[in-house]
Amino acid sequence: MAIAQALEELHNLLGERLRRAKPELDAHGHSESYFPNTPPDAVAYPVSTDEVRRLVNICAAHNCPMVGWGAGTSLEGHGLAVRGGVVVDFSRMNKVLEIRPADMDVTVQPGVTREALNEELRATGLFFPVDPGANASIGGMAMTRASGTTTVRYGSMRDNVMGLQAVLADGRVIHTGSRARKSAAGYDLTAMFVGSEGTLGLVTELTLKLHGIPEATSAGICSFERIEDAVNCVQETIQMGIPMARIEFVDAATTQAFNAYAGSDMPAVPHLMVEFNGSPESVAQDADRFAEIVADHGGSPFQWSAREEEHRALWAMRHNGYYAILASRPGARAIVTDICVPISRLAQAVKETQYDIAASDIPGPILGHVGDGNFHTILLIDPDQPAEMLEAKRLSDAMAERAIRLGGTCTGEHGVGMGKTAFMRQEHGDAWDVMGSIKTALDPRDLMNPGKLVPQG
Amino acid sequence: MAIAQALEELHNLLGERLRRAKPELDAHGHSESYFPNTPPDAVAYPVSTDEVRRLVNICAAHNCPMVGWGAGTSLEGHGLAVRGGVVVDFSRMNKVLEIRPADMDVTVQPGVTREALNEELRATGLFFPVDPGANASIGGMAMTRASGTTTVRYGSMRDNVMGLQAVLADGRVIHTGSRARKSAAGYDLTAMFVGSEGTLGLVTELTLKLHGIPEATSAGICSFERIEDAVNCVQETIQMGIPMARIEFVDAATTQAFNAYAGSDMPAVPHLMVEFNGSPESVAQDADRFAEIVADHGGSPFQWSAREEEHRALWAMRHNGYYAILASRPGARAIVTDICVPISRLAQAVKETQYDIAASDIPGPILGHVGDGNFHTILLIDPDQPAEMLEAKRLSDAMAERAIRLGGTCTGEHGVGMGKTAFMRQEHGDAWDVMGSIKTALDPRDLMNPGKLVPQG
Ligand SMILES: Cc1cc2nc3c(=O)[nH]c(=O)nc-3n(C[C@H](O)[C@H](O)[C@H](O)COP(=O)(O)OP(=O)(O)OC[C@H]3O[C@@H](n4cnc5c(N)ncnc54)[C@H](O)[C@@H]3O)c2cc1C
Ligand SMILES: Cc1cc2nc3c(=O)[nH]c(=O)nc-3n(C[C@H](O)[C@H](O)[C@H](O)COP(=O)(O)OP(=O)(O)OC[C@H]3O[C@@H](n4cnc5c(N)ncnc54)[C@H](O)[C@@H]3O)c2cc1C
Repeated sequence: MAIAQALEELHNLLGERLRRAKPELDAHGHSESYFPNTPPDAVAYPVSTDEVRRLVNICAAHNCPMVGWGAGTSLEGHGLAVRGGVVVDFSRMNKVLEIRPADMDVTVQPGVTREALNEELRATGLFFPVDPGANASIGGMAMTRASGTTTVRYGSMRDNVMGLQAVLADGRVIHTGSRARKSAAGYDLTAMFVGSEGTLGLVTELTLKLHGIPEATSAGICSFERIEDAVNCVQETIQMGIPMARIEFVDAATTQAFNAYAGSDMPAVPHLMVEFNGSPESVAQDADRFAEIVADHGGSPFQWSAREEEHRALWAMRHNGYYAILASRPGARAIVTDICVPISRLAQAVKETQYDIAASDIPGPILGHVGDGNFHTILLIDPDQPAEMLEAKRLSDAMAERAIRLGGTCTGEHGVGMGKTAFMRQEHGDAWDVMGSIKTALDPRDLMNPGKLVPQG
Repeated sequence: MAIAQALEELHNLLGERLRRAKPELDAHGHSESYFPNTPPDAVAYPVSTDEVRRLVNICAAHNCPMVGWGAGTSLEGHGLAVRGGVVVDFSRMNKVLEIRPADMDVTVQPGVTREALNEELRATGLFFPVDPGANASIGGMAMTRASGTTTVRYGSMRDNVMGLQAVLADGRVIHTGSRARKSAAGYDLTAMFVGSEGTLGLVTELTLKLHGIPEATSAGICSFERIEDAVNCVQETIQMGIPMARIEFVDAATTQAFNAYAGSDMPAVPHLMVEFNGSPESVAQDADRFAEIVADHGGSPFQWSAREEEHRALWAMRHNGYYAILASRPGARAIVTDICVPISRLAQAVKETQYDIAASDIPGPILGHVGDGNFHTILLIDPDQPAEMLEAKRLSDAMAERAIRLGGTCTGEHGVGMGKTAFMRQEHGDAWDVMGSIKTALDPRDLMNPGKLVPQG
């Protein structure tokens, strides 16, 4: 057997860092979402780029699939070895290799988590802003083109990865990008790898842009009776050029889940949570100008603070949103949707979604990165009720189709994985085949995370 | 003859919009830089995407090369039909198709120039910020991944093209991206096309991000005795998070050229020209904080103003820099270099470059987008002295090699064209072959701007 042969050689290469015990396979066959457990044949823990290169050469020689693994927090079954083979777990390649404060950049191994990275950066006065809530790995975040609460100000992984090192399916080790802040020297291979979900190669190093920790921050919360008022308020703030660092929307159902989870008693209406970064004067001024816009749109007074502990409480609440919602239906599993639309269509998209959910039996609180036009519905289903799963899929599919119809995308930040391939044709038309051609050009035998992202032959 | 056959069919398609007169061919065989005139076999002026599609099908059937043409201002011979064939001039596809103020985006045809676009946008209070100095076409700017004075604040074409429509070498018309502000739905084909210099297809439509015209602007100039002081001043300003809209460096030789060209009498030392955008309060505050940093680094007092006519004069001076320098040596032609390095290496790169130039016989004033680590040397040569051309090439090559050695790129914004292919291997290693594989996957018969960007043969 080809895979058996590969595993034997991998064992010679990695020793006890090649694992085949069932619990370890199961842990790497599990996803954060609703996909059935899909254990790989083995889990490898390389410690260097050169070791990854050798691993790839062995797997390539025996047609053994390779699937990267960061923190395993992706939500569309991205890391499941659906054709068997080896999961390559990067948790032992988790070093911060070089911090360059003068250039405000850093080179890391893919397995470092964003929290660990920011811990190491603290003394420099710099930070890495992309924040998907979960404590994901930088490699995994790059591969899903992750974004989060701060993307409205600091961009997503697309904007913050300057270059990377990857091992291709044929064992070549390539470098993309450079440490220059911009370049016009040929095709943007960095952008091609960011968001490729491990289908083009295994990433072994990344160079990231850093940002200065802001001198001052103001943050606060306000509520609205109607969703469209909240959205119009966001739209106007963007158009005025007021530089928000975060602007998050939660609907009435999410607010109720917060209340139950944290014992708070916020009114059960839509809320905006907002943060400004800058100098002490500018963040006060920004917050005051925002408060005026809120008032113009009939919102509750914008209560803001410059005190760090209050900010921490605010964002802890937002980051616990997923868990607060999960807790609102004990024993439930979540199907998380992730559409992103032009901001002029956001109120419509949220309202039509709420209407659909209200007409179904499934709870689906909504929260999202409203400054980007991106929102999530957490559809809570009883895993023992197949009818609920079907209904949740129907709702989720309707949202993806709505997003595409409104000029947006079926996934703003979570990625394609197993869950969104059904919408790629609709969203991209013939351009999806172009993605397939690129995949074939780089990985003709389909060894890198097979079964994902591109059309399946 | 295959091309002759194609031209006959193209004539049937386009009538008088297929041109074969010598002056027209010469005008499209000319480049802004030092490359010999290379006229194509014909120039086509399509008026619609569908016409471009038919044109591509005809050319593909007869193996006839196709080369896009925007405003012809690129500096590395990008648009020269080095293997003959048809130049496809987009000047008649120059419409602004749809402005969407609520979403702050716009869809345009590729032939619209950035000045014409901004003219049409004026009433909306929005603008398109990428500004390469020349009045280039949006399609050409996307294809060279152009940037300019405002990139430090608003990004380059990489950051501001949201999606595009392209006709591939096999006649398929594809759409990339969406109108959502972000997406994780598959490979980033938009980024792959931006900077592809017409080698992957002809672009027939683009959707761009727009930005609000700032409520207020402050701008000014200051001087330094030493280059490293100017650069350190820029670095500290970035690290403090003071949001500059533009920050441009000119060296002593450029200042002298300005003086001669415009009758000014600035001291013959390096200068920084700086702009801040925001509210009236914030731009005053930013300018004051910048002035302190300038003083800390031994610069002359930073003289700034909030008056628009003074800003216009400042940036007209900067934008005329190229012509001021050309005028400083009557009859000369220019070889423009374009390196970009990590900002910690910028002072070193500028100084070593100046040293090389001082040791040669060729004048080479320096100016650049210092906030990005990007600068240009305008090497002035007598076109009748082959030795000068050789010497300029030697200097230019040394700069490209230096940039790569310092972790940067041989071209920050002008692109590869004919002039930088010699450095692609050095900069990208095996990744250059990956670019070649992508090209082959999309254009196996090498019909789209052949002879450029990817490894040849
Ligand atoms: C509570 C919660 C909230 C979330 N909120 C957000 C959010 O706001 N925004 C957002 O973007 N996401 C969010 N996510 C999803 C998830 O955190 C992101 O998708 C994240 O980027 C995944 O990173 P990871 O390290 O867990 O990657 P993994 O799940 O381990 O892997 C992701 C993909 O990348 C591949 N891969 C990983 N490492 C490598 C490598 N080195 N080389 C090649 N391929 C590799 C894998 O094969 C897989 O295809 C959330 C998830 C949870 C559970
Ligand atoms: C004085 C001066 C200053 C400059 N300053 C800057 C600067 O600061 N920053 C900067 O980035 N550049 C600068 N440039 C260079 C130039 O302006 C840019 O390269 C610009 O992007 C070229 O645009 P264009 O419309 O002239 O393109 P062209 O020169 O016509 O074409 C450029 C390339 O794109 C291809 N192309 C054009 N349109 C299409 C299409 N629709 N489909 C497919 N392929 C197409 C062409 O084949 C060619 O390969 C400067 C040039 C001059 C003369």
